[in-house]
Amino acid sequence: MDWRNEIVAAADRIDGYVRRTPVVTLSLSGFASPIALKLEHLQHTGTFKARGAFNSLLSMPVPKGGVVAASGGNHGAAVAFAAARLGIPAHIFVPEMAGAAKIALIQRAGADLTIVPGTYADALTAALDYEARTGAMQIHAYDAPGTVVGQGTCLAEWENQGLEADTVLIAVGGGGLIGGAMAWLQDRHKVIAIEPETSCALNAALAAGAPVDVEVSGVAANALGARKIGSICFDLAKSLGITSLLVNDAAILDAQRVLWHEARLLVEPAGAAALAALLSGVYCPEPDERVAVLICGANPAPDPLG
Amino acid sequence: MDWRNEIVAAADRIDGYVRRTPVVTLSLSGFASPIALKLEHLQHTGTFKARGAFNSLLSMPVPKGGVVAASGGNHGAAVAFAAARLGIPAHIFVPEMAGAAKIALIQRAGADLTIVPGTYADALTAALDYEARTGAMQIHAYDAPGTVVGQGTCLAEWENQGLEADTVLIAVGGGGLIGGAMAWLQDRHKVIAIEPETSCALNAALAAGAPVDVEVSGVAANALGARKIGSICFDLAKSLGITSLLVNDAAILDAQRVLWHEARLLVEPAGAAALAALLSGVYCPEPDERVAVLICGANPAPDPLG
Repeated sequence: MDWRNEIVAAADRIDGYVRRTPVVTLSLSGFASPIALKLEHLQHTGTFKARGAFNSLLSMPVPKGGVVAASGGNHGAAVAFAAARLGIPAHIFVPEMAGAAKIALIQRAGADLTIVPGTYADALTAALDYEARTGAMQIHAYDAPGTVVGQGTCLAEWENQGLEADTVLIAVGGGGLIGGAMAWLQDRHKVIAIEPETSCALNAALAAGAPVDVEVSGVAANALGARKIGSICFDLAKSLGITSLLVNDAAILDAQRVLWHEARLLVEPAGAAALAALLSGVYCPEPDERVAVLICGANPAPDPLG
Repeated sequence: MDWRNEIVAAADRIDGYVRRTPVVTLSLSGFASPIALKLEHLQHTGTFKARGAFNSLLSMPVPKGGVVAASGGNHGAAVAFAAARLGIPAHIFVPEMAGAAKIALIQRAGADLTIVPGTYADALTAALDYEARTGAMQIHAYDAPGTVVGQGTCLAEWENQGLEADTVLIAVGGGGLIGGAMAWLQDRHKVIAIEPETSCALNAALAAGAPVDVEVSGVAANALGARKIGSICFDLAKSLGITSLLVNDAAILDAQRVLWHEARLLVEPAGAAALAALLSGVYCPEPDERVAVLICGANPAPDPLG
């Protein structure tokens, strides 16, 4: 697949539908070099997932039955938002663990919603069943080319904004965002995958040599809790020799507090996971190494103004 | 006063101490043109006030007794932060109405703190008394050239980032920020002052032809509740023919919710006041008018991660 051309085409396709999110530089004590942050959590519906949703809906003919998606919450909100914007009916399946704040976010976008007991994998089973019954178009949360290419536009945008980092830290759930990042950046910047210790599908796959099922739990599970890494992400990670590092929940929550207290960026735990690797010392840059962190999600629970 | 040269010098002086805050463009339903936002609430301690604080401390010799400031909360936090960064002792006086979140913010910065019954004006009286007793240097929250010039660097930075608006909406308390804005922009862009109906010192002064005392209350009073407009701001506003428009508390709270729900920008009510004028129709731009809004403060109560 010619990822670069696909991502350029996707960026053009979704232009005007997604927000160009800002970048900011933070100087934090204990770090010799300033840290570049891409504030992608300021995207529509609070995550990068609006990119993949718009790209999927705009690049394929949508059947009369509309669109269906399974989601830990954020992908569902993005698909619901994009579908509403384009006048397409949407049905979203979320697991109970999505939580009240994300369920309210999907409901505000106006989609039909089914809450499924269990985890993301259970919601996906229900969404696949719905697709089979109705003929609705399925938008996979992370393991579809249209999704990965859409997320890749975030990195294309960042490079266009002057990304100068040696190393880019990106949180991983099912691998849609980091898949798009690897597809776009290739080996121009070193990409490091950051996963929660208790939701580490890429890490387990790299260790096993193939995607394997993992258990998912922890503070970021409703955003990063994919049971199995996407095959697109896995293949890219393997071919590029990407490393996955693990952070624990305490480090994630600490990074979430630092982003708020130091810079008034309110994110959900998953949105702070990549920074957590840096703050907790799981990833130790060289003194002159320029590090960039992708801030990917801003839908905390409880919603402070819910 | 040669405002332009003073602001250029201040920007150079505080470079490296303050954050270059990002800008973002929002398309909101009901508005023909996108709205440019300067996210100055992502500044150190959550407001533009870090600019004036650093400029004041770096442009004048500080006596051994350190620095003193009176504040509704945000200026105190900024002075405390800047003083700690520069190794200067600081004593901050805040009124009870500052609230727990802002008081905690000042305490985190490490300053001595006295909580005074009443409003900002009462805290100022106590700070002036402290200054007289100890010889500490007073940094006025809004009516001192060093403060106004420091805040003006925010607008210089914004122009440098490509501000192209016909009209810039800025919330007003005592007039430090809008004073700096007028001093920098002069008549290159139309500046509109936005004040809460229940804390409207500039509006009352313009009506009376001179600064007059007003009563202050409402949801933004701990940030915008100056009893009397600063004379620097008043003189600039009069000479430039600036208009002040009033917004009510419901419009302010609605704008605060819109910033969070639409763009994941969590601000305090004062930080949403300027946008409130646009969303509530108090200010109606022409269809082709490019409007910019300065988002100035991000310290909500309760603190969502306090």
